[in-house]
Amino acid sequence: MKRRPSRRQLLQMGSLVGGSLLVGQKALALENDSRKLGIPLGPYGERSPFEKAVRWTRESKTMETGSSFTPINDSVGTLTPSALHYERHHAGIPTIDPERHRLVIQGLVDRPLSLSMADIRRLPSITRILVMECGGNSAGEWGPAGGPDVQRSYGLVSGSEWTGVPLSLLLAEAGVKRGASWVIAEGADACRMMRSIPLAKATGNSLLAYGQNGEAIRPAQGYPLRLINPGWEGNTCVKWLHSLRVTDQPYMARDETSKYSDLMPDGKARIFTYEMEAKSVITFPSGGQRLSARGLYELTGLAWSGRGRIERVEVTTDGGRTWVNAQLQEPRLPIALTRFRLPWRFDGQNAIIASRAVDETGYVQPTKAALIAVRGTNSLYHYNGIKFWNVRADGTVTNVEG
Amino acid sequence: MKRRPSRRQLLQMGSLVGGSLLVGQKALALENDSRKLGIPLGPYGERSPFEKAVRWTRESKTMETGSSFTPINDSVGTLTPSALHYERHHAGIPTIDPERHRLVIQGLVDRPLSLSMADIRRLPSITRILVMECGGNSAGEWGPAGGPDVQRSYGLVSGSEWTGVPLSLLLAEAGVKRGASWVIAEGADACRMMRSIPLAKATGNSLLAYGQNGEAIRPAQGYPLRLINPGWEGNTCVKWLHSLRVTDQPYMARDETSKYSDLMPDGKARIFTYEMEAKSVITFPSGGQRLSARGLYELTGLAWSGRGRIERVEVTTDGGRTWVNAQLQEPRLPIALTRFRLPWRFDGQNAIIASRAVDETGYVQPTKAALIAVRGTNSLYHYNGIKFWNVRADGTVTNVEG
Repeated sequence: MKRRPSRRQLLQMGSLVGGSLLVGQKALALENDSRKLGIPLGPYGERSPFEKAVRWTRESKTMETGSSFTPINDSVGTLTPSALHYERHHAGIPTIDPERHRLVIQGLVDRPLSLSMADIRRLPSITRILVMECGGNSAGEWGPAGGPDVQRSYGLVSGSEWTGVPLSLLLAEAGVKRGASWVIAEGADACRMMRSIPLAKATGNSLLAYGQNGEAIRPAQGYPLRLINPGWEGNTCVKWLHSLRVTDQPYMARDETSKYSDLMPDGKARIFTYEMEAKSVITFPSGGQRLSARGLYELTGLAWSGRGRIERVEVTTDGGRTWVNAQLQEPRLPIALTRFRLPWRFDGQNAIIASRAVDETGYVQPTKAALIAVRGTNSLYHYNGIKFWNVRADGTVTNVEG
Repeated sequence: MKRRPSRRQLLQMGSLVGGSLLVGQKALALENDSRKLGIPLGPYGERSPFEKAVRWTRESKTMETGSSFTPINDSVGTLTPSALHYERHHAGIPTIDPERHRLVIQGLVDRPLSLSMADIRRLPSITRILVMECGGNSAGEWGPAGGPDVQRSYGLVSGSEWTGVPLSLLLAEAGVKRGASWVIAEGADACRMMRSIPLAKATGNSLLAYGQNGEAIRPAQGYPLRLINPGWEGNTCVKWLHSLRVTDQPYMARDETSKYSDLMPDGKARIFTYEMEAKSVITFPSGGQRLSARGLYELTGLAWSGRGRIERVEVTTDGGRTWVNAQLQEPRLPIALTRFRLPWRFDGQNAIIASRAVDETGYVQPTKAALIAVRGTNSLYHYNGIKFWNVRADGTVTNVEG
């Protein structure tokens, strides 16, 4: 991995803090000179009233079905606050009493099980920081131009620390019968969201998660229990999980046939395209933001891959003519949001910027043209083309159309 | 590291889910059969109304000074939700407009600086998951018995992902003069919390953090800017940071002389005892909790060290006669909360349980007796003795007095 730039290298790009910041003693008087007692201790903290970032949602008459987008334009680090984790609901968020909730494991098993949350919490657990991405994230990019900002075009992705029980443990306890090959996961929302999971995944790294970012999973993310399939599209990670049925065939559910399938140029559809391929996007500077002045900035963004670790993120600031390696925040965890950063001097000249992720399997994030050449533009799902932003001479940032 | 126990090993301890959970088809009817539309998409999420854990605070007439304790009894994974991060305030939480906030760097420097938050956010940043512990955490353990539960006795510890600028970068930009050896950090709260930081730490791994768990740092943790000294007692991590003064001597501030110093048996006090030594505590089962039945449980807890990674956590369930290695959640990050776990069978017999952490320097968490033999019992701070819990035959859990 490339080392962080030395201060000497940074200084070659211009003063770190700008000449205006070297001030005389007179200007050093402290601004905040209140001696008033502040807010007292409290049972449950809130964010600052000066912080306004919220999830964005398209207004509709049926807000129980749709998506809300994480404000990744404002993101720092590698995690998403649970309150800002993206949502994708099909029948709203059910209100579930964990004392009454049960997970049933049935079908082609020797010993059907009905487990309470207390039963599940007694079992050996693991914790993993993972990316979660909707299969439809950045769907607008299939068209000529994406949303007006990175939140609205790329905000169906979030990162959390999940804690729960390996599904393999409970499938072994139930005893999967010979001939079984699928597990049908069903949620307790009003539409009974249902997805078919190959048995190899379910007995691989799938997780029955009850914890998110150090507390109980949030209602919008599946309280009290969610199936987590690391690296797979968010829709397969069935929320409010109440049933797992072991079968010898997929269910061909509504949300794996009419939706979450990829309509190809020849009119056929790819189905069960679970895995999210390597992807990245620059979050600063990005659409709708503005650089206030010339000088040194930290260009930054997020990269992830459903297949494992991010190996490298390359950044261009000249429209793709030249690429340099960004710094990657360590530890780079497999299938997790990876923050990349690059010090960059804005000279008041138009600049076309983009990022390109490479994962540990060697997969390289494709250009939009390469992606469309194979998949056409009929599909809503699995867009992961390289995203260009136009930093204009006046410091404003827009999409690059095309 | 020890591998996770195999299912075969687990089964030797008894059925994973208990005989009562193997149910007939009749009992498999799903409990949650509502088909009512749920709660719609929303801009900012909340936790489930069924989740009630809050920080605990001792009632007083001056709630602007005191502590609130993280409910680590309810914790899962390795992070603490920002809303539940412990607090230790000396004059309440100031309400700071980030547009007006400035950090002044002055004293023995060539180029005094006055930086806005926007200036700071343009600089090269890093992200680290770190433990934060109050120097006074588990102070009650110096006496014959601790608090009634692990929240009240050990809850002044939390884990967060912090993002910010290495302090070394700004000190280099300011140009530290020859002869300088300390940096005096001051907060913008009404009491102007002030701590003296050796220059070697400030130019080492200290961080000027503006991000916490993927968003702006919370007001209770120092919004908009906090000094983070990895591995050092929380009080040195000055919140609402507005001034750094480079000097050739410590300031001998109120909170490093009358407080946050360790009164030894001979009447002298250790001062500037910054580093938090290796420590661990079992969070389940722990004081005030109750095991509902005999059978297999996951015994779990948290370990951390201000000196680096946790190398090993040993657990006893027979009052210290025998110890076995617990599983440690990977990745084990340096100076971060490390979750340990051990499958354990409760047989309805009284059991005295405890954990003992060893860090990568080889430091072994001491017994209470060994700690008191050296430090006496005059001090409030830096208690890190091994913590025993008494699991009684009826499943209730209490302190072990002594």
